[in-house]
Amino acid sequence: MFSFGGKKAEAKETQKDLLGGKGANLHGMTRLGLPVPPGFTITTDVCKYYYAKNENYPSKLKKEVKDALGKIEKQMKRKFGSKKSPLLVSVRSGAPVSMPGMMDTILNLGLNDDTVLGLVEESQDERFSYDSYRRFITMYSDVVLGIHSNHFDSALEELKMAKGVEEDTELSADDLKGLVKEFKQIVRQNGATFPEDPMEQLWGAITAVFGSWMNPRAITYRKLNQINDAMGTAVNVQSMVFGNMGDDCATGVAFTRDPSTGEKKFYGEFLINAQGEDVVAGIRTPQPINDDSKTESSSHLKTLQEALPQSYKELVKVYQLLEKHYRDMQDIEFTIERGKLFMLQTRTGKRTAAAAVRIAVEMVKEKLISKEEAVLRVQPAQLDQLLHPCLDPNFEKQVIAKGLPASPGAATGQIVFDPDTAEQWATEQNKKVILVRIETSPEDIHGMHSSEGILTARGGMTSHAAVVARGMGKCCVAGCSSIKIDYDAKELHVGNHTFKEGDFLTLEGGTGEVILGEVPTIRPSLGGDFGELMTWVDQCRTLKVRTNADSPEDAQVARDFGAQGIGLCRTEHMFFEPERIDAVREMILADTLHGRKVALEKILPMQRSDFESLFQTMEGLPVTIRLLDPPLHEFIPHTDEDLHYLADKINVDFVRLKRKRDALHEFNPMLGHRGCRLGVSYPEIYETQVRAIMEAAVNLWNESKIKTTPEIMIPLVGHVKELEVVGNSCRKIADAIIEGTPIKYQIGTMIELPRAALTAGEIAEYAEFFSFGTNDLTQTTFGLSRDDAGLFLKDYMDQKIYTTDPFASLDQTGVGRLVQIGLSEGRAARPDLKVGICGEHGGDPESVVFCHQIGLDYVSCSPYRVPIARLAAAHAALSEKKEAKTKKKASKKKSAKKTSKKTKKKVSKKRVTKKKVAKKAAKKKVVKKKVAKKKVKKKSKR
Amino acid sequence: MFSFGGKKAEAKETQKDLLGGKGANLHGMTRLGLPVPPGFTITTDVCKYYYAKNENYPSKLKKEVKDALGKIEKQMKRKFGSKKSPLLVSVRSGAPVSMPGMMDTILNLGLNDDTVLGLVEESQDERFSYDSYRRFITMYSDVVLGIHSNHFDSALEELKMAKGVEEDTELSADDLKGLVKEFKQIVRQNGATFPEDPMEQLWGAITAVFGSWMNPRAITYRKLNQINDAMGTAVNVQSMVFGNMGDDCATGVAFTRDPSTGEKKFYGEFLINAQGEDVVAGIRTPQPINDDSKTESSSHLKTLQEALPQSYKELVKVYQLLEKHYRDMQDIEFTIERGKLFMLQTRTGKRTAAAAVRIAVEMVKEKLISKEEAVLRVQPAQLDQLLHPCLDPNFEKQVIAKGLPASPGAATGQIVFDPDTAEQWATEQNKKVILVRIETSPEDIHGMHSSEGILTARGGMTSHAAVVARGMGKCCVAGCSSIKIDYDAKELHVGNHTFKEGDFLTLEGGTGEVILGEVPTIRPSLGGDFGELMTWVDQCRTLKVRTNADSPEDAQVARDFGAQGIGLCRTEHMFFEPERIDAVREMILADTLHGRKVALEKILPMQRSDFESLFQTMEGLPVTIRLLDPPLHEFIPHTDEDLHYLADKINVDFVRLKRKRDALHEFNPMLGHRGCRLGVSYPEIYETQVRAIMEAAVNLWNESKIKTTPEIMIPLVGHVKELEVVGNSCRKIADAIIEGTPIKYQIGTMIELPRAALTAGEIAEYAEFFSFGTNDLTQTTFGLSRDDAGLFLKDYMDQKIYTTDPFASLDQTGVGRLVQIGLSEGRAARPDLKVGICGEHGGDPESVVFCHQIGLDYVSCSPYRVPIARLAAAHAALSEKKEAKTKKKASKKKSAKKTSKKTKKKVSKKRVTKKKVAKKAAKKKVVKKKVAKKKVKKKSKR
Repeated sequence: MFSFGGKKAEAKETQKDLLGGKGANLHGMTRLGLPVPPGFTITTDVCKYYYAKNENYPSKLKKEVKDALGKIEKQMKRKFGSKKSPLLVSVRSGAPVSMPGMMDTILNLGLNDDTVLGLVEESQDERFSYDSYRRFITMYSDVVLGIHSNHFDSALEELKMAKGVEEDTELSADDLKGLVKEFKQIVRQNGATFPEDPMEQLWGAITAVFGSWMNPRAITYRKLNQINDAMGTAVNVQSMVFGNMGDDCATGVAFTRDPSTGEKKFYGEFLINAQGEDVVAGIRTPQPINDDSKTESSSHLKTLQEALPQSYKELVKVYQLLEKHYRDMQDIEFTIERGKLFMLQTRTGKRTAAAAVRIAVEMVKEKLISKEEAVLRVQPAQLDQLLHPCLDPNFEKQVIAKGLPASPGAATGQIVFDPDTAEQWATEQNKKVILVRIETSPEDIHGMHSSEGILTARGGMTSHAAVVARGMGKCCVAGCSSIKIDYDAKELHVGNHTFKEGDFLTLEGGTGEVILGEVPTIRPSLGGDFGELMTWVDQCRTLKVRTNADSPEDAQVARDFGAQGIGLCRTEHMFFEPERIDAVREMILADTLHGRKVALEKILPMQRSDFESLFQTMEGLPVTIRLLDPPLHEFIPHTDEDLHYLADKINVDFVRLKRKRDALHEFNPMLGHRGCRLGVSYPEIYETQVRAIMEAAVNLWNESKIKTTPEIMIPLVGHVKELEVVGNSCRKIADAIIEGTPIKYQIGTMIELPRAALTAGEIAEYAEFFSFGTNDLTQTTFGLSRDDAGLFLKDYMDQKIYTTDPFASLDQTGVGRLVQIGLSEGRAARPDLKVGICGEHGGDPESVVFCHQIGLDYVSCSPYRVPIARLAAAHAALSEKKEAKTKKKASKKKSAKKTSKKTKKKVSKKRVTKKKVAKKAAKKKVVKKKVAKKKVKKKSKR
Repeated sequence: MFSFGGKKAEAKETQKDLLGGKGANLHGMTRLGLPVPPGFTITTDVCKYYYAKNENYPSKLKKEVKDALGKIEKQMKRKFGSKKSPLLVSVRSGAPVSMPGMMDTILNLGLNDDTVLGLVEESQDERFSYDSYRRFITMYSDVVLGIHSNHFDSALEELKMAKGVEEDTELSADDLKGLVKEFKQIVRQNGATFPEDPMEQLWGAITAVFGSWMNPRAITYRKLNQINDAMGTAVNVQSMVFGNMGDDCATGVAFTRDPSTGEKKFYGEFLINAQGEDVVAGIRTPQPINDDSKTESSSHLKTLQEALPQSYKELVKVYQLLEKHYRDMQDIEFTIERGKLFMLQTRTGKRTAAAAVRIAVEMVKEKLISKEEAVLRVQPAQLDQLLHPCLDPNFEKQVIAKGLPASPGAATGQIVFDPDTAEQWATEQNKKVILVRIETSPEDIHGMHSSEGILTARGGMTSHAAVVARGMGKCCVAGCSSIKIDYDAKELHVGNHTFKEGDFLTLEGGTGEVILGEVPTIRPSLGGDFGELMTWVDQCRTLKVRTNADSPEDAQVARDFGAQGIGLCRTEHMFFEPERIDAVREMILADTLHGRKVALEKILPMQRSDFESLFQTMEGLPVTIRLLDPPLHEFIPHTDEDLHYLADKINVDFVRLKRKRDALHEFNPMLGHRGCRLGVSYPEIYETQVRAIMEAAVNLWNESKIKTTPEIMIPLVGHVKELEVVGNSCRKIADAIIEGTPIKYQIGTMIELPRAALTAGEIAEYAEFFSFGTNDLTQTTFGLSRDDAGLFLKDYMDQKIYTTDPFASLDQTGVGRLVQIGLSEGRAARPDLKVGICGEHGGDPESVVFCHQIGLDYVSCSPYRVPIARLAAAHAALSEKKEAKTKKKASKKKSAKKTSKKTKKKVSKKRVTKKKVAKKAAKKKVVKKKVAKKKVKKKSKR
C-alpha cells in the first residue's frame, strides 16, 4: 500500500502492474509536484492475496489503511467521520489495463447523518449536501450492498410526482432530507443496513472493488481480450475536493493540443461552481478555458483565463509540465476548490487521425520524441479516416439502416438500381448517384465506377461489391439486410420508408450507416505531415507492401500511396469491358477448340495493350498477374430477359444460348469449374493470356527498353499436378515469345485451398512464388461463403462465437496455421521461394502484423489501404525490435541455463528466416530420389 | 543367370526379386518335377548392372548364355542355329511385379533361311513354317530393330489384294515364302538388317527386354503405381515346344477349380494341333478338356480325356500337384508335343467374387489354408459383385453412354423423367422404371425409392443421387455428361439416339454403363460360404464398422450385413416425408420464434416415433444422430410453378412464399447457412430434435427397458464456440428429459471443415466423440463441389492430374493429413475421445485401410458396403500383423543399434494408440489454466 500527497508519493508511475493505471498516474503527478488531492493506493498484490487466501486481507492491512487515512487527514486538515470539516473520499478501481465491467467509482464516501452537517456548514449549501448524501446512499447500496438502484429511483420518482415537479433540481433541501430517510428505509427493507460508520463504509467499498474483479462481465471481457485473470486490480482512495463550493470553485477538462487538428494549442472547457460530471452532462453550457478554445457558440462566454486568472496560469504550467513529462498530448481533469487548483487525472488524449499525424510529426521536430515513437503514435486503422472523404461531423444525421462497413469514406447522391442508369445519370446528366443492388456482379462494374458509393442488401466484407469498392477507393455499405430492394418497381424499402429512384441517400462506409437525404461531406487532404511520417514508416518496416490493382489507373493510385509492386492483377476484369465481353461470350459459346481460338484471337491484342499500360505504370516494380479465375458462367447473363437481349445483339439463337447457360450452371460456383481448372479444360485460354502478358513485356522492351519481369500466377491450385500441367504449358508459350530478349518471368501459384497449403512442399517444386489468397482460403477453411455469410454472421457476432469477421481480420488459429504450414513447407522445398498474401487481409493491420511475424515477404492490398499496411508493417517491426531488446536484457540477467519450454515455443513460432529453412532444405534434398534430381536439373537449365 | 530343365532348377521360386514372377514359377515348376521346356533366366541383377554400367553387360555373361543354351540343346536334342532339328526359343521379360508397358514375348527365335528348312522337315508343314518365320521377322523387327509393324502389315495387305483373298490363312506356302523375302527388303529399306545369325538374334532380343524397362510407358506405369525404378526386370529364354506338329499335338489352358463358381472341378479348354494363341483367337472352337468342362455349345466336341487319355491323366496329376503346392486355384497353360505334355505357365487364377469366397472357404475345410489366409483371398472391392444384381454375362449388350459408376448393381426398366411418374408407374402400374434426372434433390426421394435404378447427367461420386442410391442399395449411374435431358419434351438425347418416356434402358452401376434396351439381370444369393467367411473376417479385424442409415429399414439391412451400430443417421430425410414437409415449410415461413415453435411441435411426435423405431432396431448398438444439416431452402421448391402449387396447397400467399424463397437463396449453399449455423440462428430446431431423440430413448426405457445411449452429433462445427453454444443448449434439454432414468447420452461433432481439424484440440474439450465427415472435408480441402465436379473431373482423370476420384477414395496426402491432425490433437485433449469417419470413404477399401492404420475407432458406410468395409478392415489388421512379424524378425537379426531414420518415420505414422496420447495429454494438462480445470470438473460431475 502506497500513499501519495503533498508532492510526495511512495511509489512510482512506472509501477503500473502494482498500482494500476489510475494509481500510477496519481503517484506520477504527485511526484512531479502537481497539486493532487492526497490519497493512497491498495496494490494489486493485495487483490492477489485476497483471492489466494479465500477472500481474506493481509493482517497488517487494516492498520496500514488507518495510517494512510491519517496522512490524508493531516494534509487536508479534515477528519474522516468528523462532524466538523469531515474528510470525504472517493474509492476507485484501477487495473493495470483499462477494463470495463468492474466497479468504477464511489464518491463522497464518509457521509452519514453527522458528517453531512459538517458538509452543510462548509458548503453553506444544504440542498447540495443532502443531494450528495442521497446519491452516495444509492451508489453505495447498489455496488456494495447489492440493492439495485431501481428501488431508489422509483422512490425518487414517486416523490417528484407527489411534489408535482419534473426535474430532480426542483426538489428542495427538505425534500432531499426526507428522501435520505426513505432510502435508508429501503436498505432495511432489503435486509441490509446502511453503515453509518465511515470506516465500515470504506471497507465495504474496498471489498466491492476487489469483488468486482471476478464479476461475470469482467471475466468475459478479460477472456475476450486475453487479459490474464491473475493480474488483479488496485484500489485508489483519494480525498474529495469540491469544485462546487462557490464562485471561486470550478471544474474542467482540457487537452494539451487540439485533439481534432493536432494544432499545438491548449484547448479545454470548464464550469464555475460545478462538479466534474456537470461538464459532461450538458445541463449548463461549458465555457472555453481560453481564447484558443472558443467556438462559434461559446465565443460570448467568459474564459477561465478571465474568470480565475491565477488558477489558469497555474494550469498552464501544469499542462506544459505534463506534456513534457509524458511526451504525448494529455487529456487532463482539474478541479479548483476555493481558488486552489487540484489535478484529478491525466492520461494520453484520444485524437483524430489528422491530429495524431500532426502531433507525432511536430513532436519529433520539437525533439520530444524519436521518429520511431512518432510512427508508433499513429494507429494503422486510423489512417482510413485520412484517406477518404468523411461526413461533416456538425451535421445532424438520421440513420435509417446499418450494414457492414465494407469500404470506408462517405458518399451522398441519388439512388439508382441498375448500373446502366448509374452510368447514364453520372456521365450524361452529371448527377451524383448511389448504386443500390441486392448484390453486385462483374457486370455491374461500369455502374460502380460511375457511382459515388455502393449499397448492397447482401454479401459480406469480401463480397464482390466490397472488394471492388475498396479497390476503387469508393465508399460501400454491404450486406444491409434490413433494406428490401424491388428492382421492378425501382424501390428500396426500409422499415416504413420507401425510397424511389432519384431519392437522396448518404452512406458512411466506415461505420456501415445508411443516412436519410443529403449530408455534406468533407474531402480531407493529405498534408505534408502525412508524407513525412510515411517516409519514417518505410524506414522502420521490413515487410514489403504491394497492391491489388487491375488497371493502370488503380496501379497509379497505389504507386502514389507507396505500393512496391502489384501483388494481384485480376485479369477477369479485363474481360468485362464492353468491347470485349462479346468476344468472350463468343469463346464460351464455341463448341470447338477452333471456335474458341478464333474468339481468343480477338481478345489477345486488347489484353496485350492492357498489360503494356500496366507494365509502363509499374516500371521497375514487380507485377503479379493472375490468370483467369471465375467460372465462365459469370460472363453470361443470368436472367432470360438479359439473355434474349444478348441473343439479339450477338445474333445467336436464344435456345442455344440458354442451353449453354444451363449447362454451365453450378450449385456452388465457388467450388466449381474455375481457376486452374479452366486452364486444365481449356488450355487455350491461359495460353492466350500468357501470350498477351509476354508479348506486352517484349514490346515494351523493344520499344522503350523497359524491362519487366512478369510473375504469372496460376489460381486455385490444390494438387501439384495441376500446376505441373498448366504451368508447363504456360512456360512453353512464354519461352518461345521471349527468345532473344533479356526478359525473364516467373510462374507461381495462389495458395488458396487448404490442400494447397497442406501439400505446399510438393507444390513449391513447381512454383517460383506463392501468394496466399486468404479470401478463398478463409472460405474453404471455415466452409463459409463470403457471399452468403451475411445471412447469419450477425447471429455469430451477437452470440460472440466470432469476435471478429474472419473475412476482415485473418483467423490466425485456423487459417493462419495453414498459412504457416504452407510457408514453412514451401520454403523448405525451395529456400528462395517468394511468399506474400493478396487476400483482403493484406490491408488489415492485425493481419499485417501476423504476416510480418511469420516471415512473409510482402502483403498486397487494395490501393487505398497501402498506407495502412505500410504503417502496420512498421509497427510490427518496431514491436519485434522492442521484444528482442527486452529478451536480450532478460537473458543477460537470467543464467543461460534457465530456458523455459514456454519461451522456446514462442521462438519457434517466430519468423522462419530463409537462411534457417535453407539449411533444413539442404538436408532434405539429400534423400530425394534420382528422378526428382533430374527434374531439378531440367529446371535450372531454363 | 540360372538354368532350369529336366526336373532340376538352379534357383528357387521364392527368389522372385531376382528371377521375376515368370522366371520364379518356371523354376518352381521344374523343381516340382513337372515337364517344363528347359531354359534359363537372366536375373534382375544383370538388368541393374546394365543400367549402372552405361548399358554394358557383365563380361562373363556371354559365356554363361552360351553354356546355358548348350544345356537346353542337350536336353532337347536340338541345336540352336542348326538346319537339322533346330532349337527355337522364346524370349520373355519378367519383372518381380506384373507390369504392362514392357516388351512381352518373342517366339520362334532362331529361325532363319536355313533353320526354317529344318522346321519344315520336322513339322512336315511348309505353310506353317514360313508363316512362323514371317511372324518372327515382324515381331523381331518391331521390338528389336524399331521398325513399326505397320510396314509389314501393309505389305501383307497388298499381297492379299493381289491374290484376291480375304484371310491370311488363304495364302499359300509360296505366298508366304515370297512375303519373307519382301519383309527382309522392308527391313533393309528402313536402314537395318535382319540378323540371320541366331545368336545375334538372341542378344538383340535380350537387349530389347532390358531396354524396354526404361521405355516411357513402363516408367509412367511404375510412377503411377509407385514401383521402384531400381527393381529391374529379368529375361527368360526357353525352348519352344510345338502343339501344332500333328494330331498327337495339342495346346490348352485350364483352371484347377471353376473360376466362375469356385466349384472344385478341373476346368479347361484345348485344341488339337494348334498353337497357344489359337485357343484365344476364336478361329476354331476350343474343346472341353473333360466332361466337367462341357458347356451347352461344346457338349458335342471331343474332350482331351477322350482324345489323348494318357496326356490328360498326366495333366490331372500336374494340376493336383500345382494346387497343393501353391495352395490356391491355378490358371495353367500346357502344350502337348507329339504326345508329350509340357507345362508352360502356372499362376494364381482370376475368379469371380462368388468363386473367391467358395474357394477360400473350401480350402480352409480341405486344410490347405488357414482362416486368415482365406480372408486375404477375397478382395474387398470384389464383394460388390456379390451384394448386388448383375447383368447376364452371356447377353451381348450395346453400350450407348458411360457415366460414373456411382452405385453398383444392374437395373433394367422404362425411363421416366420425374419422381412422381416414377412412383405412379411403379406402384399403380407395377412397371419397372429407371429414373432419369439432370440431377436429383431431396424432393426426388420417393421417385428414387420407386425406381430400379437412377441415371443422372450431372454430379459426381458423392452427388445426392449417388449417396442416396448407395444408401438404398440401388444401382446408379451419375454424371453421365454425354446425355442431354429435355424435361419439357420428356426426352433423353445421346449422340443420334432419342429416347422417350417409357423406352427401355439398362444401367450397370458398377461400370457406369448405360445400355440399350432390356438386358436380363441375375440376382445373386449370399450362400453359407459368405456367412462363414465373414465370421472369420470379424475375428481378424479390430476396426469397427458402423453404417449410415436414416430409417429402421436401412438400419435392419445394415445390421443383417454386420454393422456394429449407426455412425450417421441423417435427420433431414425425416423432414421430407410427405406428411411432414408441410409442417417443415410452415416452420420456415414463420417470421417469429413463436410461429416456428408451433410448427416444430407438429414435427416433434413424428420424429420421436422415428427414433423409437430406429433405437428398437439397433437395440444394444450405438446410434449416432446428426442434427439438421441442409440449408432451409432445400425444403422449399425452386421453380415458380412448384411454388404456385405449394402456395395453393398450404394456403399461403404466393408472393410471400416467393419472397421467402428469394431471401433464403444462396450462391454457395454448400458453404452457406447450414449445419450448426442453423442451430445458432434457430436454436429451437435443434432443441426439438434433441427432445425427440431423448424422449424416444426414455419411452423405450419406460415401455420395454431398452437402454439406448444416443450419440447426438452437431454438424459443420468450425469453431469451438459453435459447439459450446449449440452443445450446451442441447445438454440442457437432454438433461431435463432423462432425469430419473438411467439413460445416458453423448454430444459430439462432425469434423468436416479444415478449421475443425486444425482446431481439434480446442473442439475436443467440448466433444465426447468426433466423426470425420470426409465428404464435406474433401469438398472444402480441395475447394471442390461434389455436385459440380462432374463437369471437369473427366479432364482431370484424362490428364492424370487425379489418379482416383477424391470423393471415392480418401486423398491421404491432403484430406488424410487433416484427419490425422484432427485425430491426434483431439485425442491429446481428450484421451478417451471416440473417433470414426462417416463419409462415403467409409466403404472404400483403401480408405478403410488408412482409417485402421491411423487408429480410428470405426468407419461408417452405407448398408450395402458394410461387408466390404469389414473385409477391408480385416485385411488391414492382417497386413499390420504380418508387417510386425517381419519387423520382429528383422530386428532380431540386425543389431539394435542400426535403426534407420526411415523406419522411424514409418513407425511414427502408425497407429496413435489411446495409451500413447493419454501420456502426452497428461503432460499437457498440467500447464492448463485454472479456468480450464474448472470446466473439466464441471463436466466430470455430469
